[in-house]
Amino acid sequence: MKTFKVAVIPGDGIGPEVIEEGVKVMKKIAQLDGRMQFEFTYFPWGCEYYVEHGKMMADDGIEQLKSFDAIYLGAVGYPGVPDHISLWGLLLRIRKEFDQYVNIRPITLLNGAPCPIIGGSKETIDMLFIRENSEGEYAGAGDWLFKGKPEEVVLQTGVFSRKGTERIIRYAYEIAAESGKTLTSISKANALNYSMVFWDEVFEEVGNEYPNVSTYSYLVDAAAMYMIKDPARFEVVVTSNLFGDILTDIGAALAGGMGLAAGANINPERVYPSMFEPIHGSAPDIAGKGIANPLAALWSASQMFDFFGYEDIGEQLLVAIEKVLEEKTVLTPDLGGNSSTTEIGDRVVELVSALIESAR
Amino acid sequence: MKTFKVAVIPGDGIGPEVIEEGVKVMKKIAQLDGRMQFEFTYFPWGCEYYVEHGKMMADDGIEQLKSFDAIYLGAVGYPGVPDHISLWGLLLRIRKEFDQYVNIRPITLLNGAPCPIIGGSKETIDMLFIRENSEGEYAGAGDWLFKGKPEEVVLQTGVFSRKGTERIIRYAYEIAAESGKTLTSISKANALNYSMVFWDEVFEEVGNEYPNVSTYSYLVDAAAMYMIKDPARFEVVVTSNLFGDILTDIGAALAGGMGLAAGANINPERVYPSMFEPIHGSAPDIAGKGIANPLAALWSASQMFDFFGYEDIGEQLLVAIEKVLEEKTVLTPDLGGNSSTTEIGDRVVELVSALIESAR
Ligand SMILES: CC(C)[C@H](C(=O)O)[C@@H](O)C(=O)O
Ligand SMILES: CC(C)[C@H](C(=O)O)[C@@H](O)C(=O)O
Repeated sequence: MKTFKVAVIPGDGIGPEVIEEGVKVMKKIAQLDGRMQFEFTYFPWGCEYYVEHGKMMADDGIEQLKSFDAIYLGAVGYPGVPDHISLWGLLLRIRKEFDQYVNIRPITLLNGAPCPIIGGSKETIDMLFIRENSEGEYAGAGDWLFKGKPEEVVLQTGVFSRKGTERIIRYAYEIAAESGKTLTSISKANALNYSMVFWDEVFEEVGNEYPNVSTYSYLVDAAAMYMIKDPARFEVVVTSNLFGDILTDIGAALAGGMGLAAGANINPERVYPSMFEPIHGSAPDIAGKGIANPLAALWSASQMFDFFGYEDIGEQLLVAIEKVLEEKTVLTPDLGGNSSTTEIGDRVVELVSALIESAR
Repeated sequence: MKTFKVAVIPGDGIGPEVIEEGVKVMKKIAQLDGRMQFEFTYFPWGCEYYVEHGKMMADDGIEQLKSFDAIYLGAVGYPGVPDHISLWGLLLRIRKEFDQYVNIRPITLLNGAPCPIIGGSKETIDMLFIRENSEGEYAGAGDWLFKGKPEEVVLQTGVFSRKGTERIIRYAYEIAAESGKTLTSISKANALNYSMVFWDEVFEEVGNEYPNVSTYSYLVDAAAMYMIKDPARFEVVVTSNLFGDILTDIGAALAGGMGLAAGANINPERVYPSMFEPIHGSAPDIAGKGIANPLAALWSASQMFDFFGYEDIGEQLLVAIEKVLEEKTVLTPDLGGNSSTTEIGDRVVELVSALIESAR
């Protein structure tokens, strides 16, 4: 029996509500499956912590997290704490300090999930986004000159290193090669005349190592348009930090909404813990009401099972999520139902338990 | 009778085909209306010119264009000439040298135009994008260090000046105030910790001068999602150069496709000529076949009439475009028809002529 140590950071707003369902489901699965067990350790970090302590996490927070196998994060952000403080102090800090340079976001329209575009289906909307997650536009580099003067000028510098660009692109080629899917790179060399020219060069260079992978290259604006008009073009997609941020939210819109959008922040070398999070925010407007949709958090948990090497379980959990959507008997308000967060979690527990038992 | 000098740069691919229809329509309108006349001067610049002369326009090209009242541009780009060369040598160069710092892109789903989202209508999809067009992410600033070495690193710097940021935001507030619409600012301060924090500050500051304008502020990722899920939220929108690029392509997808997407690059002080262009590319795959959709080019011509002070004509031309879409008898293949570029132009001429005559 393997033991996995999971650091849980429920965070702000609806974070604790959805993460609780994830923990519940994971515990139940471990108990039924018998191959693994989880040790969950909770960290009370986030905006409330900030208001009390003037910082988003403990001073030695990164040190404390280091020995865990994974981090399970709810959501960060709260009215009153500026976003750039809360996020650089927690979410973005963890992504960077633990060199979680791969952000994996599945964009699949599960059966039963709502889709705002005409003709959307699981066949046409089924992509895997590989987003650079450690540098690029999110390097945090810049300067603010002549503050308050008429000549004031603010600089924001994207930093694209050879190492950082190559490794994310190679990671995406590996996934495309393994899965036999096409690989699409999304950039913007016609306007971003340094970074994206470099990106395109590296995409081509690394591609020479993968002669069997069919590739495409899109400008980010065209990609945004085609994701809506013809999403079937995209299978595995690799892109920069900022473009990945924007395009995966388009993806979330297409694939059932934010309540179904999951993400994994991976350190592939496993030197540091990887982090799993629903990509929705803290949604302060519905926090505390018990109506937040936990399915994104559960999908992230499914990604965690994949990461730990239990891809069969990851798959079963995803099938259970899809069943909930197909049944339509328990759904949260964002999906047109009137069930509670807990009821969704309970139903997933039932469904995944049945799947695991019948697979024995 | 007023005379307007218009520099015509048909450019590459389908550019010449669609621009020709625009010139035809403008001439006919001038002749019927009687208040204005146009002097069109053609410039053969673009990628073919580049292949011959090693540059995208004449050395004194900017000087040559300076005395015109407006520039009417088709499209730039051609296989074989790298995009960052063709665009920085022509389109982006003109935007910058002529301080066309406002890019106005109407995103309205005209009646009869196709829409990929469920429930899309002219009521729900009706926005006006005001995109910063002179600096920001498109400043062209950056560096490429240690080329070819393992420590290679490429920097791309967005430059947001007080002047540049204030003037575009103020322009948008003016439009919102005049039209009684809401104003939405789109930024990303949670990740872009210098430029977008500054942007948000300026948006708030300038807002103090417009207490009657209702404002909203969205993160770019959330905006991309909501444009698809709930486009009715957006009326007048102001955003940075790159975000405007991406979001207006989402807008184009929603509002009938690239064949209907128009843009105006405005120098509001009228010190330099403004430029009007369909925002689609050169579409080399269909160039020369006479099937390109000229409606975006015609919509840009309508923006030109507005700019010259003939808003009645601008409106009539837009009504004629909408009639073509409603009639569905002549449409290009991108809109499901099988008519030619010229046939669309001819039908618009007929329709707008009838409108002008009946308005007498
Ligand atoms: C919260 C924010 C900093 C974050 C990002 O921009 O990466 C989020 O939008 C995401 O996509 O994970
Ligand atoms: C061609 C390209 C440089 C341009 C841009 O990115 O501004 C285009 O996409 C646009 O939106 O006008």
